Amino acid sequence: MSKFKDKSLNLHKKNIGKLDILPNIKLNTKNDLSLAYTPGVSYPCLEIKKDKQKAYLYTTKGKTVTIITDGSAVLGLGNIGPEAALPVMEGKSALLYHFSGVQAVPLALDTQDPEEIIKTAKLISPNYSAIMLEDISAPNCVEIEKRLQKELDIPVFHDDQHGTAIVVSAALINALKVVKKDINTIKVVVSGLGAAGSAIIKLLTKLGVKEIYGYDILGVVNKNKYDKYDSLVKSLIDGKYLLTNNSANDLGDLLENKDVFIGVSAKNILKPNMIKKMNKDSIIFAMANPDPEIIPELAKKAGARIVGTGRSDYPNQINNVLVFPGLMKGVIENKIRSITDDIKIITVKAIANLVKEEALSEENILPDIFDKRVVTSIVEAIKKKA
Amino acid sequence: MSKFKDKSLNLHKKNIGKLDILPNIKLNTKNDLSLAYTPGVSYPCLEIKKDKQKAYLYTTKGKTVTIITDGSAVLGLGNIGPEAALPVMEGKSALLYHFSGVQAVPLALDTQDPEEIIKTAKLISPNYSAIMLEDISAPNCVEIEKRLQKELDIPVFHDDQHGTAIVVSAALINALKVVKKDINTIKVVVSGLGAAGSAIIKLLTKLGVKEIYGYDILGVVNKNKYDKYDSLVKSLIDGKYLLTNNSANDLGDLLENKDVFIGVSAKNILKPNMIKKMNKDSIIFAMANPDPEIIPELAKKAGARIVGTGRSDYPNQINNVLVFPGLMKGVIENKIRSITDDIKIITVKAIANLVKEEALSEENILPDIFDKRVVTSIVEAIKKKA
Repeated sequence: MSKFKDKSLNLHKKNIGKLDILPNIKLNTKNDLSLAYTPGVSYPCLEIKKDKQKAYLYTTKGKTVTIITDGSAVLGLGNIGPEAALPVMEGKSALLYHFSGVQAVPLALDTQDPEEIIKTAKLISPNYSAIMLEDISAPNCVEIEKRLQKELDIPVFHDDQHGTAIVVSAALINALKVVKKDINTIKVVVSGLGAAGSAIIKLLTKLGVKEIYGYDILGVVNKNKYDKYDSLVKSLIDGKYLLTNNSANDLGDLLENKDVFIGVSAKNILKPNMIKKMNKDSIIFAMANPDPEIIPELAKKAGARIVGTGRSDYPNQINNVLVFPGLMKGVIENKIRSITDDIKIITVKAIANLVKEEALSEENILPDIFDKRVVTSIVEAIKKKA
Repeated sequence: MSKFKDKSLNLHKKNIGKLDILPNIKLNTKNDLSLAYTPGVSYPCLEIKKDKQKAYLYTTKGKTVTIITDGSAVLGLGNIGPEAALPVMEGKSALLYHFSGVQAVPLALDTQDPEEIIKTAKLISPNYSAIMLEDISAPNCVEIEKRLQKELDIPVFHDDQHGTAIVVSAALINALKVVKKDINTIKVVVSGLGAAGSAIIKLLTKLGVKEIYGYDILGVVNKNKYDKYDSLVKSLIDGKYLLTNNSANDLGDLLENKDVFIGVSAKNILKPNMIKKMNKDSIIFAMANPDPEIIPELAKKAGARIVGTGRSDYPNQINNVLVFPGLMKGVIENKIRSITDDIKIITVKAIANLVKEEALSEENILPDIFDKRVVTSIVEAIKKKA
């Protein structure tokens, strides 16, 4: 473990961070300077002054997004502040470029006030093709994304919500093919009702799931506790995304006769005896990071047919990296201004369809994260729609 | 001209802007991912959480500045807004990297409200080693820089003010060596009292110049017009940086028996007959861009001994690019928190001293902008001071 720590620290130290921002032009002669800077630079300036859209053509705006965080909910580390969040933002930027060629400027903000975050994102928006929000705590992140998407004319994408919802949906669609169940009749329990959980619930509803139950830190979601919930859970209840007419007292009760458990909550909260109460051919997506709601071996032993986690050391890794590179590339290349439910569903299907029926199995419901077809398929699907 | 325009537009279009933000790590295997992203990334995060200063070690903060503009006073183009200002900011970033290796993220803000600019700069400051302000109109730029430098613990540098003041001062020191005049007894007229002019006046005062007169759009600076001036000119008068006890009615009158004309104002306002009224061995720095206050040939013919401009096609190019790369590198490498007058004066002398006495001449008062010793000399001088 200590060796792995040293390796990671050295990797981050070697080049002072994981990104470099570099000129792609020559500046060796006065002539080079006069083209790239004054007086030549005035031509693209004046073109853009006449038509702002030309900024996509002549400046880095056309290929660059920003990844904004407030450092309030970083990976499994919690509220660690802007500076400490930077390595994660740089990592995300590196992943985005590696998989899609889209470039990203990380931006950790020294505020956790939603209004200040919204204001700042709007003021910096001229520089970017799109805004990704990252590791901002719920329920703020949901409000921030909604407001920004409404008030800006560039796409705004919160990966923790929609990246997770999309990849979980793709995994579920394929898992249902394996167990031969119909998405319209399955019963689903979602554990963890923050940014990811609520986005998963909403997207699954759009995809045809009719019965979803919620479980969170206050236990089984129940109308009686309404006043204790934050705005996010309230909106799930108000919008009838969650069924609340049940008498279950605990997670075990709630899982009785259910088909699917989706966890974006906390390690080890799912016990084998709970899985035993579920319907035959149960599906368990235990995605708490880095330690899942249940260890896959235990879930299998308790009778689960398909188990997925966020981890790369088990089969069925359900990882957002399958989503955001292709999705960002697709919306940027096609000048899509807003990431609608339609776009999300197109992305779900593009990912799911990459695993052909004959290759589908209990241990193979999603494409590999290094499969280069993932990005191209998503981009193609979005292009077709646009 | 049209061919030059096409060349510039093509250069800007070829790679979609002049910068690329790229990962400097490999991401080809799951092991690569686990070091650069989860779970390995948590180690630098936690180190930085314990000690924010570690962000300089493990993240791009340690090698990166941001170049902030509001698009209100861009080169010779004026108030063209944030998108249209981007090519200039990218050019500046490219120059900074080319000459010093310091990386810069351009940031054009969608506001021209000083309070919003200050607020935004503070909120994004965790990401950068320093902030450069660029092409923000006066007098806002002066207030913005002052406030930011006071309220942030990273250096804040407004090149239009201090870069210009430093390079002009270096040019003047060497010009005075050629004409054998003493900085303490020369009489100087500064034309143009915006960001650059006021910074020049203040720095020259620190360097020992005792008699400085001002000229601007309202004519010769005079206490009688006090109420008509903006805060910048008022502060020059209040601080006694400018002499106002003179009866000159126009620029010609004002220049009578003066030694130095420094123009950061408008093209062609300086006439040969005005230069004829100046003292013997007069020095003319006509730096309006792209067209100077007087064409060098005309100034020479009228009797000026030394003429400098901002242009690369005449001798004595007085260009900020001699200043900001070395200065930014010097303050970052030496963890200097604030660019004080001392640092500015050290930089002036480092630049001036690069032209040895025997090489000094009427047509050679400054080092060439491609002279690699410029950056290293400034960095060395700052290091010695720190």
